Amino acid sequence: MKQKDSLDCQSRRLEHSFRLTRVGVTGVKKPVTVHRDGRDRHLTATIDVFVDLPSTQRGSHMSRNVEVVTEMIEESVRKKVSSLEELAAKICKKLLDRHEYASFAEVNMSADYFLERKPVGGKASLEPFKLMAKATAMRGNGLMKLVGVEVQGMTACPCAMETVKHKLQLKHPELRHVPADTPMISHNQRNRTTLIIEVPEQVEIEADDLVGIVESSLSSPTYGILKRDDEANIVMKAHENPKFVEDVVREILGRLLVKYKGLDNSVHVTVRSESEESIHKHNAFAERVTTLGELRS
Amino acid sequence: MKQKDSLDCQSRRLEHSFRLTRVGVTGVKKPVTVHRDGRDRHLTATIDVFVDLPSTQRGSHMSRNVEVVTEMIEESVRKKVSSLEELAAKICKKLLDRHEYASFAEVNMSADYFLERKPVGGKASLEPFKLMAKATAMRGNGLMKLVGVEVQGMTACPCAMETVKHKLQLKHPELRHVPADTPMISHNQRNRTTLIIEVPEQVEIEADDLVGIVESSLSSPTYGILKRDDEANIVMKAHENPKFVEDVVREILGRLLVKYKGLDNSVHVTVRSESEESIHKHNAFAERVTTLGELRS
Amino acid sequence: MKQKDSLDCQSRRLEHSFRLTRVGVTGVKKPVTVHRDGRDRHLTATIDVFVDLPSTQRGSHMSRNVEVVTEMIEESVRKKVSSLEELAAKICKKLLDRHEYASFAEVNMSADYFLERKPVGGKASLEPFKLMAKATAMRGNGLMKLVGVEVQGMTACPCAMETVKHKLQLKHPELRHVPADTPMISHNQRNRTTLIIEVPEQVEIEADDLVGIVESSLSSPTYGILKRDDEANIVMKAHENPKFVEDVVREILGRLLVKYKGLDNSVHVTVRSESEESIHKHNAFAERVTTLGELRS
Amino acid sequence: MKQKDSLDCQSRRLEHSFRLTRVGVTGVKKPVTVHRDGRDRHLTATIDVFVDLPSTQRGSHMSRNVEVVTEMIEESVRKKVSSLEELAAKICKKLLDRHEYASFAEVNMSADYFLERKPVGGKASLEPFKLMAKATAMRGNGLMKLVGVEVQGMTACPCAMETVKHKLQLKHPELRHVPADTPMISHNQRNRTTLIIEVPEQVEIEADDLVGIVESSLSSPTYGILKRDDEANIVMKAHENPKFVEDVVREILGRLLVKYKGLDNSVHVTVRSESEESIHKHNAFAERVTTLGELRS
Repeated sequence: MKQKDSLDCQSRRLEHSFRLTRVGVTGVKKPVTVHRDGRDRHLTATIDVFVDLPSTQRGSHMSRNVEVVTEMIEESVRKKVSSLEELAAKICKKLLDRHEYASFAEVNMSADYFLERKPVGGKASLEPFKLMAKATAMRGNGLMKLVGVEVQGMTACPCAMETVKHKLQLKHPELRHVPADTPMISHNQRNRTTLIIEVPEQVEIEADDLVGIVESSLSSPTYGILKRDDEANIVMKAHENPKFVEDVVREILGRLLVKYKGLDNSVHVTVRSESEESIHKHNAFAERVTTLGELRS
Repeated sequence: MKQKDSLDCQSRRLEHSFRLTRVGVTGVKKPVTVHRDGRDRHLTATIDVFVDLPSTQRGSHMSRNVEVVTEMIEESVRKKVSSLEELAAKICKKLLDRHEYASFAEVNMSADYFLERKPVGGKASLEPFKLMAKATAMRGNGLMKLVGVEVQGMTACPCAMETVKHKLQLKHPELRHVPADTPMISHNQRNRTTLIIEVPEQVEIEADDLVGIVESSLSSPTYGILKRDDEANIVMKAHENPKFVEDVVREILGRLLVKYKGLDNSVHVTVRSESEESIHKHNAFAERVTTLGELRS
Repeated sequence: MKQKDSLDCQSRRLEHSFRLTRVGVTGVKKPVTVHRDGRDRHLTATIDVFVDLPSTQRGSHMSRNVEVVTEMIEESVRKKVSSLEELAAKICKKLLDRHEYASFAEVNMSADYFLERKPVGGKASLEPFKLMAKATAMRGNGLMKLVGVEVQGMTACPCAMETVKHKLQLKHPELRHVPADTPMISHNQRNRTTLIIEVPEQVEIEADDLVGIVESSLSSPTYGILKRDDEANIVMKAHENPKFVEDVVREILGRLLVKYKGLDNSVHVTVRSESEESIHKHNAFAERVTTLGELRS
Repeated sequence: MKQKDSLDCQSRRLEHSFRLTRVGVTGVKKPVTVHRDGRDRHLTATIDVFVDLPSTQRGSHMSRNVEVVTEMIEESVRKKVSSLEELAAKICKKLLDRHEYASFAEVNMSADYFLERKPVGGKASLEPFKLMAKATAMRGNGLMKLVGVEVQGMTACPCAMETVKHKLQLKHPELRHVPADTPMISHNQRNRTTLIIEVPEQVEIEADDLVGIVESSLSSPTYGILKRDDEANIVMKAHENPKFVEDVVREILGRLLVKYKGLDNSVHVTVRSESEESIHKHNAFAERVTTLGELRS
C-alpha cells in the first residue's frame, strides 16, 4: 500500500509552518436519541467537531470526524446515552484517539427539544426549547462538558411601567388610589435567554431544570395555546414581574447558586438574555460569563 | 471563431425537452445610487434576475444577467434613476434584448434604507426600513413594476387588553371609574409589515409614502432613541391604538384607497403583517393579495 | 356567559371592511411522528396554518389554529399517519370545522429527515434531507395535498469543462488522445434542489422516491463520509455527468413523467434548482412551475 | 426634578447582586460614511455596543448607547473618519464617558462593501466583501481596535485531485505523459474566509489589503462576470492552486508576517476559513487565533 500512502496529502510534513487552533467540520446534521427518565427523546442535532493541528502536518483527516460522529451515535443506540453532553464527551474522546497528532478536541451540538407546559388553568402543550451541549478535551488532561438551553419567553419593561404610571396618575387622579402593586401598561416582548453550565465529572445536570430556572426568571414563560382567560393571566403575570434583561440574567445567577450548591467553585457559567424590544428595531442584551466561585464571592 | 461557437454549450439545441419558467442568478449584491428629491441615496442592493428558456435551448447565458445588471447600474450613475423600481425595469427590458430567446424577464431588488423619524418631543434619528422593487416583462407586451417596503413597528393586542381590563376591574373596583378609553395593559410586540404596490406607467409612487402608510396603521411606530418620557408616550400611544395583525392589514388597505384614488382598478396590491407575539413562541400573520379594483368594489 | 361574549373582540362585526386572503400563525414548532413502512420517523416540524377571513369579521381566532395543530398531532399518535401531507390535510379540514366563518384553509409543514445512503464501495451513513408538505382546502370543495423534498447535492459545470478541455489540449497536445468522454476539470459546487408534487386523493407518493429522483438528476449525490477512494469516485462521477441547473430541472421533469405515468394531467409540479456557484459569489437558478399535463403535451 | 429621579429605575441601587460582563444593544442599523483615499464609502452598518455593569446598579441606560452611536456617526459626517474601526473606537470612548459607572466598553460593527476586481483579460466589476470592526476599552487603560474582512472565494481540494489523477492514469495510460503540474479534476467550492487583525495606536491598516491577502491565499478569487474564456481561466487557476482550508489559513498567516513586519508582537490575529464542500452537506473549517509574536517564534 505504498501507493496509497503517497496519496495521503493530509499527512505530508511541513516545515516552517503554523499550528492551527481548530480544524474540523461544521453543520453536520444527525438524528440522535437520548434516553432519560425511562423514555427516548428523538433529536435532530446539528454538530461541529474540531481538533487542533500541529505545525508539521499539512491537513487534518476530515472524514475521520464524521466517522467518529457516526460511530458514536450508532453506539449510543445500543448503549443508550442519557444526555447530549455525554454524547459530545464520547465523541470528543474518540476524536483524540483517531487524530493521533491532535492534542485538543472540541464538540458542539444543538437541537430543538420539547417540554410539556401548562399555563395555570389552561391547556397543556409541548413547548419548543433549544438544547446545547459542548465538550472539550486536552490529551491526557480529562474532559470538560457543558450543557445549555435557549428559552424563549416574555419580558415587560419596569422603567416604562413606572413612567407610564406617573403620567397616567397625573391625568387620571383616581388611578392614584389603586394599590401600588397594580400592574401598569409597559412595553413587553419576546426574549431569548441562554444558560450554559459546566457539568463536572460524576455529576448530572438536567437540561429541564435549566429551562425551569430561565422560565422562572423571565417576566413570564410563553405558551403555544392560550385561550382568552389564560392570555389575560399571562399578560398580568408578566406585568406583575417586570424585568430588564439585566434582571433576568441576575435572577438566573441567583437561582443557579441555590440550585447547584454542591457544585465546585471552578464550574463555568454563561448567561445571556436578549429582548427583541417592541419599542425599538434593535435588541437589548445582557450577559455574564463567570464561574460559580466568582458568583459566590 | 467556429471553435468558439462549438464551445457554446448553452445554445446547443435540444429535442423533446421542457420549457423552463425562470432561469437566472440570485443573490447578486451591488451598490446602487438612487437620485430623488435632489439628493442621492446610497443603497446596498441584493438582486435576483430571471428569464424564461424555450424547450429547444439547453442553457441560459448566465453571465449576460450579471453583465446587464452591472451595465444598467453603471448607466444609472451617468443618467440618474429616481427609484429602485425604475432601475429594475431598465434591467428587465435589457434582459429581453440580451437573451434573444427569452419571452419573459423578471427582476427583484431589495435594500436597507433609512428615513429620519422623531417621536413627539423626542430626538430625531435615522430609522431603518427595507425597500423592495420588482419588474417583469413579456416580450412585446410592456412592463410591470412594483415597489414595496418592509416596516418594523409595534402592535398591542386589543383582545388581551379588554380581558385584562375586565379582570382588573373585578379585583380593583376603583378601576371602573377611569374613563373607558384609558389604555390598559396588554401584550405588545415587534411587528413586521410589508406593503407592495404596482406602479403603473407614467406614475411615481414614493416609497416614503408607503412607509408612512404602514407606520400610521400600526399601534405605534418604533424609534432608535427614546428617553424615559418618549418611551412612556410611545407605550401609551400603542395601547391607545391596540391592533390585531388583521386590523393593520385592513387599515393599510383603507389608506391606500384614499391615497391612490387616481390609480387604475387593475393595480396589484399585497399587504402582509406579522407580529412576533410576546406571549407565544410563534407569530401571528395576516395577508391580503388583491387589486385596487377589488378593494373598491 | 354574556360577559364572556362581550370580550370576544375577534367576532366583532365590521362594516365596509375588507376580506383577508390568509390569517393565521407561522413558525409553530412541534414534534411529529410519521408511521411508514412499519417504522416510526420522528420529525421536528415547523408549521404555518392559515384561514381566510370575511370582511365582516374583525379577527380570526388565532388560538384555535394551535389547538387544531396540537389535537391533530395528538390524534396522529393514536391513529398513526403515514405522511406529513396526510397530517397537513387533516389539520386543514379541521381548521375549516373550527373556523366556521372561513371558506379556505392552508397548512405548510417542513422538517429535516434522514435516509441511509452509501457511496459505491463506501460506508453507509444517514444523509439529511428536507421534507415539505402542504394542504389547502376550499369549503365544500375537497382538498389539495402536496409533498416535496429539498435535496443537497453536487453539480459540475458542462460549459467550463469544454472550454478547459479545449484550452488544455492546445497547451498539452497529448491530451487530444484521451477518449472524448474522459472527464475534464470544471467548477463544481453545492446545489440545493426542491421538488414538490401534488398528491391526488387515493394516491400515495413516497418522499423517498422524490429524493431518489433528485439525486439521480444531479451531477452526483453527496455523502457525509467519504474515504479517499470514495471521494475520488464521487468527483469523477460528477465530472462524467456535468449539469447546468437547467439540466437538473429538466431531468427531474423527465423522470417524473416516467415514474408517475398513472397520475392525472391536472397534477401540479414545481421543480427548483439552485447552484451555489464556486466561481461566483451569487447562485445560478432554474425553475419550472407546471402540471403533468403541460409536461406531457 | 426629584420626581424624575425616582423614575430612574436603572440607577436604583442593589445589594448582594452580581456584576454583569456586557450589557447593551444589538442589531442597530445605521448608514455610515467612511472617507478614505479621497473618496467616500457609503456603508449600511450593523452595530452592537456594550458596557459592563457593577453589581450595585440595577440597569444600564440603554438609550444612551444609541444616542452615542448616533452622535458619533453624525460627528463623522462633519469630521470625516477614515475607517470603521476608527468610528468604533470613538463610540467606545464616548460610551465610557456617558456610562459613568462602567469600566469596560465594546463596539462591534459590520457592513457589506465593494472593491473593483477584474479577472485577467476579463471585465471589471464591483465584488462584495464584508467589512468588520471592533473596539474595546477599559477605563483609563487605552483602547484596542480590530479590523477584519470576510471574503468569498474558491478552494479546490488537493487530496481528491491526487487520488483522481492516480485513478485516471491507471485507466488512461496516455495521461501519465502530461506534465506533473497539469491540473486534474477535483472537487471545488465556495469558501468564506475571515481575517481579523488588531490595529495598534498610530497605525493604519487597509481593509483592502486584508482582502488582497485572503484572495491571494485561496485557490482563486471569484468574480461576478466571467465570459467563457475567463471562466476557464479561473477554473484552471483554482486547480493549479489546490488548497485545503488548513492551507488557506496558513498562507494568510505567512503573508501577514511579511506584510506587517513592523507591527508589534502583541498584535492579535484571527484567521478562519470555511469551505462549503461540494461533495458533502457539511463544511470544512480551519482557524488560528493568535498574536504576531506567537507566529514569529
